[in-house]
Amino acid sequence: MEKWRAADRLLKFSSRFASGTKLTCTIINYDHTHPLVSECCFFPIPFYCCKSKQGKYFYSVATTVHRNPLFSIISPDDISYFKTLLGERGVVQDALALDAANTDWMGKYRGSSKLLLQPKNTEEVSQILKYCNSRCLAVVPQGGNTGLVGGSVPVFDEVIINVGLMRNILSFDKVSGVLVCEAGCILENLISFLDDEGFIMPLDLGAKGSCQIGGNVSTNAGGLRLLRYGSLHGSVLGLEAVLANGTVLDMLGTLRKDNTGYDLKHLFIGSEGSLGIVTKVSILTPPKLSSVNIAFLACEDYTSCQKLLLEAKKKLGGILSAFEFLDSDAMSLVSSTTFLGTENHGQEVIKDKHGQDFTSIDLRALPLEFWYSYASGSIFMENLEAFLLHSVESGLVANGVLAQDINQASSFWHIREGLPEALMKAGAVYKYDLSLPLEKMYDLVEEMRVQIGPAAKVVAYGHLGDGNLHLNISAPAYDDNILAKIEPFVYEWTSKNRGSISAEHGLGLMKAAKIHYSKSPETVRLMIDFDYCVFELLPDTSCLDDNHSIICLCLSA
Amino acid sequence: MEKWRAADRLLKFSSRFASGTKLTCTIINYDHTHPLVSECCFFPIPFYCCKSKQGKYFYSVATTVHRNPLFSIISPDDISYFKTLLGERGVVQDALALDAANTDWMGKYRGSSKLLLQPKNTEEVSQILKYCNSRCLAVVPQGGNTGLVGGSVPVFDEVIINVGLMRNILSFDKVSGVLVCEAGCILENLISFLDDEGFIMPLDLGAKGSCQIGGNVSTNAGGLRLLRYGSLHGSVLGLEAVLANGTVLDMLGTLRKDNTGYDLKHLFIGSEGSLGIVTKVSILTPPKLSSVNIAFLACEDYTSCQKLLLEAKKKLGGILSAFEFLDSDAMSLVSSTTFLGTENHGQEVIKDKHGQDFTSIDLRALPLEFWYSYASGSIFMENLEAFLLHSVESGLVANGVLAQDINQASSFWHIREGLPEALMKAGAVYKYDLSLPLEKMYDLVEEMRVQIGPAAKVVAYGHLGDGNLHLNISAPAYDDNILAKIEPFVYEWTSKNRGSISAEHGLGLMKAAKIHYSKSPETVRLMIDFDYCVFELLPDTSCLDDNHSIICLCLSA
Repeated sequence: MEKWRAADRLLKFSSRFASGTKLTCTIINYDHTHPLVSECCFFPIPFYCCKSKQGKYFYSVATTVHRNPLFSIISPDDISYFKTLLGERGVVQDALALDAANTDWMGKYRGSSKLLLQPKNTEEVSQILKYCNSRCLAVVPQGGNTGLVGGSVPVFDEVIINVGLMRNILSFDKVSGVLVCEAGCILENLISFLDDEGFIMPLDLGAKGSCQIGGNVSTNAGGLRLLRYGSLHGSVLGLEAVLANGTVLDMLGTLRKDNTGYDLKHLFIGSEGSLGIVTKVSILTPPKLSSVNIAFLACEDYTSCQKLLLEAKKKLGGILSAFEFLDSDAMSLVSSTTFLGTENHGQEVIKDKHGQDFTSIDLRALPLEFWYSYASGSIFMENLEAFLLHSVESGLVANGVLAQDINQASSFWHIREGLPEALMKAGAVYKYDLSLPLEKMYDLVEEMRVQIGPAAKVVAYGHLGDGNLHLNISAPAYDDNILAKIEPFVYEWTSKNRGSISAEHGLGLMKAAKIHYSKSPETVRLMIDFDYCVFELLPDTSCLDDNHSIICLCLSA
Repeated sequence: MEKWRAADRLLKFSSRFASGTKLTCTIINYDHTHPLVSECCFFPIPFYCCKSKQGKYFYSVATTVHRNPLFSIISPDDISYFKTLLGERGVVQDALALDAANTDWMGKYRGSSKLLLQPKNTEEVSQILKYCNSRCLAVVPQGGNTGLVGGSVPVFDEVIINVGLMRNILSFDKVSGVLVCEAGCILENLISFLDDEGFIMPLDLGAKGSCQIGGNVSTNAGGLRLLRYGSLHGSVLGLEAVLANGTVLDMLGTLRKDNTGYDLKHLFIGSEGSLGIVTKVSILTPPKLSSVNIAFLACEDYTSCQKLLLEAKKKLGGILSAFEFLDSDAMSLVSSTTFLGTENHGQEVIKDKHGQDFTSIDLRALPLEFWYSYASGSIFMENLEAFLLHSVESGLVANGVLAQDINQASSFWHIREGLPEALMKAGAVYKYDLSLPLEKMYDLVEEMRVQIGPAAKVVAYGHLGDGNLHLNISAPAYDDNILAKIEPFVYEWTSKNRGSISAEHGLGLMKAAKIHYSKSPETVRLMIDFDYCVFELLPDTSCLDDNHSIICLCLSA
């Protein structure tokens, strides 16, 4: 019965789509006749397809989806329209630039878009979407294109809308700490701007040099400070977003409390661009505190890491801002790659005060910790050192270093943040981003090692303080036999333990069809309903009688 | 054009409703022909009506709305069904109990419900709603009934569903700090439970002895700790909710990070019960820190209060957990009421160390502050005292007391939390809950004093750290002439300054028709769409052909 209902609903969905009489947008680029869709896909984001192998790009799943023929092909008239609207600079057809925009950071996903548009303001985004809606042109919003799940690049020939030119800081209020800026602002630039004002961003992540705040918000990026400052659902106070038909939704509040009707902005946070393009962001930033320090500690086993986390949360409260985790395989990898050597990082970092090399100890896990002082440096250091001493004496910590200056602190972070790049250099990598109950997190890593055998290396790191594991399977080259050992095992294991198959990276192209591992059929159904409702019940009903289809694909950081 | 569209959409909405062929629920109890509705009301919660004066109950606006005749009247068969389902204890028809459940805490709003149902678990809530949906019986969910906007009581004869018997704590994980409990748990009981475990609730409010966590979540209650621990959008990790047709929505995750599709729980946080009844809550709780203290400080003017807030946020960072505010009229009121005297609070509290009475100084504002230590008491006290000393020396603080023990600290809170009751004792009170830009907040208070003149007293207090003002106009008795001076002035002023007319109390019956003062037409339209979509596109489509109408009215804390 339940299955029937699902099929029935999907059929309705697809018949609406096929008839072309009511749908203004939502789903593109997948074929409803594909068994995958009729079996398990409820999610209305057009991710039901996978890359065929071509060159070094890959996405090996036994499904391919055809481009939906209802979508138009870009015509010379379209190009003329966009040049009139945006000027020559805003309309990019250059092969090199398009190649970069068509390809994701890992080189795993690749589209074939022939057009990249660069609007300079919200009005231009609105006009672009309105036009594409009327012309039935598929679109994909793009930020810094740093995503890891194939969400920020075209699947086929969608028009790429990159908001990178929208990079103005609109206001900053020193009393409330509220920053209002355009979506294309690069995270690192915002961090620098705030630093001068005596504030910090509530989020920080390895990709900060390229990722944009609009993409961060659209993917609900987590990162390194979530433990202390919470998720973007807590710190984003307002948004401006443009819906697929060009309607501008002004939700750009700057207030900490506003219970006036449904708080719609939350639907856009983490919806990966599927409901609209975020154009402006209002975010609460905490004041910069006077002292910062970081400790790099070694624990004998995973249990000690867990216990240490609990102790640190209790004893250090508000000054603990991150509690990271690398296992010994991650530590070996990062210290063996030339990456660290060439940068002159590494050796001094992974040795303790007495010159002992961390990697020479048989450790199963290494947590990395990071702290903010609440007050004067000396009181802070005293207290922190007392805590660390106690942790060593009680046996929770086997070895450790407390950074002696800002350079050493930054080199500690360099180890943690350098891991994704070190993995890329080591060969092919299968990346999984999971939330799991803390006590079970490392069981998955160990079971995965048994499951995979010697064919590949299992490397685990992540944000222990948030229960977020980055599970990486590193192999010399991509191999379907390895993938078959990983999937669906990893999703089934996560689902069985009530974890999330997508902690902070989003679903993207990679995992859209896997949503049912983490979400109940009722909630997925409601997601479809909301998605449909955003597009069917648009205020501009004049276009409802024509055959209009537009989409917001996946906007990634 | 814009106006036309709005009218057109509303017409569509109402015609669907009138035809009774598709609607499973959403709107009740208002008459679409009423001018108020066709002019400005888009919000699909049945709040478009006001109480007629009867006895001491009042809500004086020149609008009344008739009960929608599409809703059924409770029959003896209905009562039999509910008794079979819930047992005798779960079906309350006793006049005294119904009187209490029909009346709000302030005695301003009163319904005429003849039936109060007390389910003991989610399944019973689901069965009740399914039945009411099929019978076209209107319902109102109710928690602790402590709301201040008339959202938790019936408007007419709706069936009251009170979840107070669902009060089990389901799990608590000491490592992650995640508490999972039923919606009927009283906030104070959760606070006590966590205290024993070494944790605290991330929210605290004056009504904690009666309000329930389900109501807290449904109204997105703010309270005293929001400054430090953020809103419930940040700390609620998961929810279980029952939709109007009985569908149970399992969103009860316990993970800090979960970007798997749209995060639907956020729509239920703060939707005041209009989308469904929250039945279970999963919430992240911070560890209890070792020291707590509170300072009660006096500033010469509002500007000093603002500056002090900024300094405190900078210098004290994570240990500042609340920054409250009372103006001198609030201070006079609370110290003059017998309320404090009889409790033996007051005199010792409002005098400083040298015995000087705070109220004797001509102060325009008095902030109240509250702190958590991050570590050992002595370091904390030293640091806090240094900060206070500096604040006094720099002239920001005119006078002040730092609590010397836990009893004194608690008596400080008693002053702040006693204000609503003191106002009730002082006579009639018009209450407004506003978010405003910090620098303009007190301008409204002063302009309101000019606007009102000597007919009433303007008393201001609130959560300064969150930009949240509780504006109270206190008069000997309710008077339409006073109200006419307050409204729409207060809403227009707030709207002009991009504030929120509903910071933390919700819209309720009082402000549903005022939503457009804080939200753009496009966002209100999308709220209607979502509301409609939740109910129209329910999985159980079998009932779509009948004339079904159910509602979730407003669940208040």
